[in-house]
Amino acid sequence: MAAWLESAQTLVPTLNTRSVVSIARVVLEKDSHEPLGWRYDHIAGDPSSSDILSPRSSIIWDFGDHYVGHFSVTVHGIPRPKPPGDIHGSHVDAPARLRITFGEVARDVAEDFHPYTGWLSESWLPQEIVNVDFMPYRLEIPRRHAFRFVRIDVVATSDNFNVKFENVRADVVTSANLELLPPPLTRDTFRSFSEELTHEEMDILVAVDKVSIRTLTECMQTVFEDGPRRDRRLWLGDLRVQALTYFSLGLADTSLIKRCILLHAALPYDDTGRVAACIFEHPMPHAGNNFIVDYSLLFGVTLLEYVQATGDDALGRDLFALALKQLELAFAYVDRDCLFSIPDGVWLFIDWVDGLDKQASMQGVVILACKALSALADRLGLSSQAFVPHNNGTLSLSAAIDLMTEAAYRSLWDPVRSIFVSGPDRQVSWASQAWLILADACPDPQACMKAISVTNGAVAPKTPYGHHYVVDAYLHAGLKVDALRYIARYWGSMITAGADTFFEAWDPSDPQFSPYGDAHVNSYCHGWSCTPAYFLRSRLKE
Amino acid sequence: MAAWLESAQTLVPTLNTRSVVSIARVVLEKDSHEPLGWRYDHIAGDPSSSDILSPRSSIIWDFGDHYVGHFSVTVHGIPRPKPPGDIHGSHVDAPARLRITFGEVARDVAEDFHPYTGWLSESWLPQEIVNVDFMPYRLEIPRRHAFRFVRIDVVATSDNFNVKFENVRADVVTSANLELLPPPLTRDTFRSFSEELTHEEMDILVAVDKVSIRTLTECMQTVFEDGPRRDRRLWLGDLRVQALTYFSLGLADTSLIKRCILLHAALPYDDTGRVAACIFEHPMPHAGNNFIVDYSLLFGVTLLEYVQATGDDALGRDLFALALKQLELAFAYVDRDCLFSIPDGVWLFIDWVDGLDKQASMQGVVILACKALSALADRLGLSSQAFVPHNNGTLSLSAAIDLMTEAAYRSLWDPVRSIFVSGPDRQVSWASQAWLILADACPDPQACMKAISVTNGAVAPKTPYGHHYVVDAYLHAGLKVDALRYIARYWGSMITAGADTFFEAWDPSDPQFSPYGDAHVNSYCHGWSCTPAYFLRSRLKE
Repeated sequence: MAAWLESAQTLVPTLNTRSVVSIARVVLEKDSHEPLGWRYDHIAGDPSSSDILSPRSSIIWDFGDHYVGHFSVTVHGIPRPKPPGDIHGSHVDAPARLRITFGEVARDVAEDFHPYTGWLSESWLPQEIVNVDFMPYRLEIPRRHAFRFVRIDVVATSDNFNVKFENVRADVVTSANLELLPPPLTRDTFRSFSEELTHEEMDILVAVDKVSIRTLTECMQTVFEDGPRRDRRLWLGDLRVQALTYFSLGLADTSLIKRCILLHAALPYDDTGRVAACIFEHPMPHAGNNFIVDYSLLFGVTLLEYVQATGDDALGRDLFALALKQLELAFAYVDRDCLFSIPDGVWLFIDWVDGLDKQASMQGVVILACKALSALADRLGLSSQAFVPHNNGTLSLSAAIDLMTEAAYRSLWDPVRSIFVSGPDRQVSWASQAWLILADACPDPQACMKAISVTNGAVAPKTPYGHHYVVDAYLHAGLKVDALRYIARYWGSMITAGADTFFEAWDPSDPQFSPYGDAHVNSYCHGWSCTPAYFLRSRLKE
Repeated sequence: MAAWLESAQTLVPTLNTRSVVSIARVVLEKDSHEPLGWRYDHIAGDPSSSDILSPRSSIIWDFGDHYVGHFSVTVHGIPRPKPPGDIHGSHVDAPARLRITFGEVARDVAEDFHPYTGWLSESWLPQEIVNVDFMPYRLEIPRRHAFRFVRIDVVATSDNFNVKFENVRADVVTSANLELLPPPLTRDTFRSFSEELTHEEMDILVAVDKVSIRTLTECMQTVFEDGPRRDRRLWLGDLRVQALTYFSLGLADTSLIKRCILLHAALPYDDTGRVAACIFEHPMPHAGNNFIVDYSLLFGVTLLEYVQATGDDALGRDLFALALKQLELAFAYVDRDCLFSIPDGVWLFIDWVDGLDKQASMQGVVILACKALSALADRLGLSSQAFVPHNNGTLSLSAAIDLMTEAAYRSLWDPVRSIFVSGPDRQVSWASQAWLILADACPDPQACMKAISVTNGAVAPKTPYGHHYVVDAYLHAGLKVDALRYIARYWGSMITAGADTFFEAWDPSDPQFSPYGDAHVNSYCHGWSCTPAYFLRSRLKE
């Protein structure tokens, strides 16, 4: 494992830095027609400065796109005019106290973050309080922030001076090489769908692709971060779909994916060999204390996809046993009848949906992982090792796939409705259909997807991660147009809401939805949301 | 003037830096017997660290003395214990948001600064909000603060970790060379007063001397600052008494005083030649926009005292005309009868006392300045220039002194009460007596000081600056024991209130007094309060 860590650390990418300037000053207006509740307008004035501002006033700048980096601005103290007759004016005779707020979306800089009702740390709210002793002063915020909008509130000056800001700038960072990105899609991409898709839908898809790629590259730092605003770390579930999206761009340098896989391999959750759900890079790389069963099973899937995309069989061979180990451990939750049985005290993620029954989804995840490991074993000539424990014995992966597929059909499939159900209450959810279709466990994927789409009360995904697997299932079922329309509708609704990058959590019917108790702590650029580019660039030709 | 500035800038002193560590952890308790309302106690535990702290808890350290400098501390994230059975613990998975408050006195770190009611900028309240992304982290506060106590409030972590602080340190600065300071006073200093002073009084004076010198050296940075906590700049009124105190220490290096005089000379308030009341050093040295008549008149007094102490006649000669200019300008406010006439729209300081009538005090200041310029002219052979304008003609300084002294006697002296009165309401104040005694305009100084001390309702000083001139007047009147008792009583009451350095404003009968509308913005180490050492070391031998 030490060698894996060493190898991962040789692959720390160089961060590409460039300076960008704000493009306009902004005013905000509450607007109930806006999904996130606020409209912004550009106003006159030098876009990278402010007027003279007195205490309790503020200025908002728009950088024109989502950026990750370091904000800086020159702060001038401007003596206040004195009454007529006093020729001397006033002096900058005290510090200036400023509050700087970073907004990925306009709402971030429109609403007071307090009172904060979330259960994630309030310290994630992207705000800095700064005291400037002497002016003019080049204020450089040392912490990295993720933002399109920056607001400065003048908290305090003295009675003798106001402040003015100039040379607003951001030194932005990404490890992606933006110059090598492939050209944007055009309507031509969708030529073969021209009978089914409207021009408007095609234009939305073109825009969605662009925002997808921006989302991906903004998350590309020294790892694939889940979100550059919050968490800012490597999560296995995000990594899988970020890697797929990255591969779809056809770029030669895949070393960041290799680095992330190696970090997960090198830094397990515990000494039973479980891979951690997330990895922290700082102050030294270390495993997070979360273990998520479905994420751990995606380790093998991610490894297979990496090996397939890169031909790096050596890494596949190195990590095969670890990937298989995740499956072996997961079979503790597979009962005698080969059904996944929800264990106590273990985190199954699938999606941030309250009340989602995860039995059927997990059945699909386990089968999918078996299939990936089986494919990897075949490729690497390791089939003799491809066994999992079951019922005090072992099963070959192919036997496990067959038995679990049969069990899904026997126990979870409702042949009358052509739909999978999950759990003791026979819950119907989009996730269950998606995962069991992707596991090839569905007797009639097209009927199933059609059925779920007209089932009232079906539990729907709440995050782009959940929606990703629905789109994947549509494509797996051969329903390309449905997949495209689904993408246009769901990811397109984020663009309508102002997305420059796709959001961590998004329910178009409930724009205030947050998995964390307060939408202000949501991340509006999130790795697991970047996948439309993958579908549009890699999956339409199948 | 450019040459004076250049000369001043060659005299920028080297700041002496050293590291000090906190000596104890502190708990605070509200205590109505404490003048400032709070008692602090040292508690067990490593003095330069904290226990493990959860959000909404805090820690206070005591550095054991007043310091000016840069605070630093190592911030550790400590995963919270998980329920039994979870062997993995938690992670430092979010930033830590901290609020750091600097206290010159315990009250600063005991009371919420808000709601703030003062009229000086809220930005002076010594507090920083800091976000620490990754831990452990050596947090270094870049701004200079003035403090004995430092409090950290843990504003936010995540549910998964607490914080712990270690290696609390301050890198402190002063341009004073502490190693060259003279030894402390002892009871022996007061041997000749042993009949009149109690041992307790002598001990208080010994302590007052020590705190005086600490106050002086804490204010010695690249100029004599008025206070290292707030304003942090060079004020002429403060400079005069700081220089006197510095001279009383018998130190060879007087260049900082020269630098400060040169800055005032080089950077006038306006092009009529008025010297500014204060000088800002940053970002480039420049004059403040305040002109204070009495301060401007003290320029010549300060210059004389500098020349007398150092023998630097050359500087006296260079700046004589400028010093004389202040007098010439002040004579615009001297009426036909040679009485000072309060002008409109001009700042006369004297003291921070609401309702103080300043006519008599200013009469004294003008006479004192005439006497200083006269002495300087005599010393430098410049008597032929020593004239001031009056009544469309001119007066020699000696004539001006005589006429103004007579006018004071004629119009301001109450021979029945042996006391000076001031203004149309014939107000009786300590300031009036003090300044006119110092101007040698009082027919019977001893009777006058005895009279004022028993006058009910006499307007009393509110700051150590005002009290300084009362002590000076006692000594001028030959009332040494009264002067010593006054020092012991007034400055001693600050020590009782917890002073390690003397306060900017202090009324023992009203400890919440602030000239600025909120005592939280008062400065508790202030240059103009350092003068007991001057009296005790230079004036008792007269």
